[in-house]
Amino acid sequence: MIAKGGGGFDAVDVIRAKRDGGELSYEHIDWVIAAYTRRDIAEEQMSALLMAIFLRGMNDAELSRWTAAMIDSGVRMDLSAVDRPTVDKHSTGGVGDKITLPLAPLVAACGAAVPQLSGRGLGHTGGTLDKLESIPGWRATVGYDDYLAQLRDVGAVVCAAGDDLAPADKLLYALRDVTGTVESIPLIASSIMSKKIAEGAQALVLDVKVGSGAFMKDVASARTLAETMVGLGAAHGVRTSALLTAMDVPLGRTAGNALEVRESLEVLAGGGPPDVVELTLTLAREMLTSAGLPDADPAVALADGRAMDTWRAMIAGQGGDPAAELPTAPEIHTVRAESAGTLTHLDAYAVGVAAWRLGAGRARKEDPVSAVAGVVVLAGPGERVQAGTPLLELHTDDPSRIPRALQALDGAVELDGPTQRLPLIIDRIG
Amino acid sequence: MIAKGGGGFDAVDVIRAKRDGGELSYEHIDWVIAAYTRRDIAEEQMSALLMAIFLRGMNDAELSRWTAAMIDSGVRMDLSAVDRPTVDKHSTGGVGDKITLPLAPLVAACGAAVPQLSGRGLGHTGGTLDKLESIPGWRATVGYDDYLAQLRDVGAVVCAAGDDLAPADKLLYALRDVTGTVESIPLIASSIMSKKIAEGAQALVLDVKVGSGAFMKDVASARTLAETMVGLGAAHGVRTSALLTAMDVPLGRTAGNALEVRESLEVLAGGGPPDVVELTLTLAREMLTSAGLPDADPAVALADGRAMDTWRAMIAGQGGDPAAELPTAPEIHTVRAESAGTLTHLDAYAVGVAAWRLGAGRARKEDPVSAVAGVVVLAGPGERVQAGTPLLELHTDDPSRIPRALQALDGAVELDGPTQRLPLIIDRIG
Repeated sequence: MIAKGGGGFDAVDVIRAKRDGGELSYEHIDWVIAAYTRRDIAEEQMSALLMAIFLRGMNDAELSRWTAAMIDSGVRMDLSAVDRPTVDKHSTGGVGDKITLPLAPLVAACGAAVPQLSGRGLGHTGGTLDKLESIPGWRATVGYDDYLAQLRDVGAVVCAAGDDLAPADKLLYALRDVTGTVESIPLIASSIMSKKIAEGAQALVLDVKVGSGAFMKDVASARTLAETMVGLGAAHGVRTSALLTAMDVPLGRTAGNALEVRESLEVLAGGGPPDVVELTLTLAREMLTSAGLPDADPAVALADGRAMDTWRAMIAGQGGDPAAELPTAPEIHTVRAESAGTLTHLDAYAVGVAAWRLGAGRARKEDPVSAVAGVVVLAGPGERVQAGTPLLELHTDDPSRIPRALQALDGAVELDGPTQRLPLIIDRIG
Repeated sequence: MIAKGGGGFDAVDVIRAKRDGGELSYEHIDWVIAAYTRRDIAEEQMSALLMAIFLRGMNDAELSRWTAAMIDSGVRMDLSAVDRPTVDKHSTGGVGDKITLPLAPLVAACGAAVPQLSGRGLGHTGGTLDKLESIPGWRATVGYDDYLAQLRDVGAVVCAAGDDLAPADKLLYALRDVTGTVESIPLIASSIMSKKIAEGAQALVLDVKVGSGAFMKDVASARTLAETMVGLGAAHGVRTSALLTAMDVPLGRTAGNALEVRESLEVLAGGGPPDVVELTLTLAREMLTSAGLPDADPAVALADGRAMDTWRAMIAGQGGDPAAELPTAPEIHTVRAESAGTLTHLDAYAVGVAAWRLGAGRARKEDPVSAVAGVVVLAGPGERVQAGTPLLELHTDDPSRIPRALQALDGAVELDGPTQRLPLIIDRIG
């Protein structure tokens, strides 16, 4: 196949330009993304280009155009019919990160509209849609008219992105996964921002996670990613800011689909773990300020039940029964302390992998997930335990999964070690 | 597809190791080449690895193992039944490079055996098999027994490599061609040397071309390639040396299949262009010395007709009629000097592209080639011409090809410019 760009160049010319450290022209970028999306550039050609980008990088102009081309591979949604300021949040993913669940209705209850087109989980971090699907009746798929109506009437929709939202990203994401080209800041930033910009919100708050349970293991690389994404948002007319937040230990006390919905309901009811509450309120304030509603107080909307009311409307709007019992696991295995001491560390990545192996996540995107599987943290960092004190509960509907989950947790709990914790909110960019 | 190596690693682990600047282990290399050859590693994974190798390189130990794994993807031929010292030559390819045609019978006439498994041309340089196929009746395919018998009885075979000779290279070569990963010294060196080592000869002489018509445009990169290949030969027990030779202007007076056979016959008859004669004799001496026959004098074997006798036997052994008329082109277009002056440069690459466009070469490996198409050089560098003096003849069987061939030649002939020529024999490595 010899596909040619308008300038007479072909895929090999584009690959060679980047390979040799040059700058891709706008013509190169526009053509390569469009031709790849319509499958006129072979997978092996795109993967060679992705590796060249991985190792050579892209400058700001290239990256902005690359992101624009990814957006233009599909449609940029029009939310002008929504008579509220629109603002969304995106998290780069963490263990126990259920923040979207209380946050979206909370921000909506304060007057903004939150149009969140979300994805499913892959690997050790859960997906928001997977979590919501543990609610009986709830549907991830929403038609365009219903989507706009719910945004207007309720103020929050969390649903699956349609096939016309940055289709180039779907193809590139799957290709990067099998070709060792995932951990590249320009490729990560353009993947996230192409979808978020195409979503059509006026403002965006990014929660960039840092630590063992996150994609970015250190503050420096998380900061670079955050700055890159904030710059891309601005270049495309979306008010964008970012928080760097801790993912060295799991967020809250649960990792798993129905388990996290239950914990989110505690937060919406005015309780819940302090870290989940603090991060939810911090992100809500950032979103409301960005949406032009700096005077709204999300703490009040959480306390007076308005956030819970909005949650119920949001869930009911997509067929879910907010009053239904959530499913529970038939098998629960308790992990106990082997000796007495002060719990100084609980590794987020290990807990994430354990939840994944118990059935909460998927290894391949076509795998099913279990609604009930996951990990409950009974004793967290800072707590004093005795030998035999229950530390963790492993929930699953398949007890044969427990041994491998326990393997993942080997060394994850530390007693009387050094206490080096990241602050929950590390920094703000934007 | 999740293919796993013996150590539990998969293709992504291997890609990431090289991507991050690490050294591939022998286990990585052996597995990745074997799994790719049996199609257990996807094209897009191998192309990402090739780009990582392109940009990160391979050290001597990695490259030697990579080459060994490519050899082991097929069979290493056993020539022990041939009762002559065995020696082959490989050229990295140039415009008008027909040297194998007089060289193989000449070296055979001096007592060695030349087992040349050759390829077809792709791009602007011709292929030896394409040239020989312009001889009526000649067949590129030879069975194993006939191959050994001809090596014993005649001393020279130039034929097509079987599918079991370094099959990994066939796959990698096609993949590199479409993924911008051709011009990498370790990938070029392992491609050439895996085939040449698998061929089973005891000694090997490499003709590494330098200049516009060659793969290596400058002496430094040609020297690195030559040193790399000489090292690989030694590591695999093949006495290997290399000459760096000029490819700034075409070799001899012809580029094209039957045209080059005709010129080779002039050399075998004791005439021919001085540069073709000199390079043939220099390579013959290098091969004979390497084969342990330093006292054989190829100039005598050329002058007394023994080389021509061996040529006839070699051609007849593969069904060709050495006395048959060679085909000629129905259409010949003459390019004439526009003004008077001294011809100071004739660009090899431009002549190669012109011959290719006239039909002598192929753009894709499944394309047919024309036996008669090509370029004849009537006036070469150093000659004085008048306005109207014929400079080049363009031969083709399709006159519609002439305009694009003329385009390729635009600026290729220089009158009264600086005379900077590479010496024919630039250096010897080994």
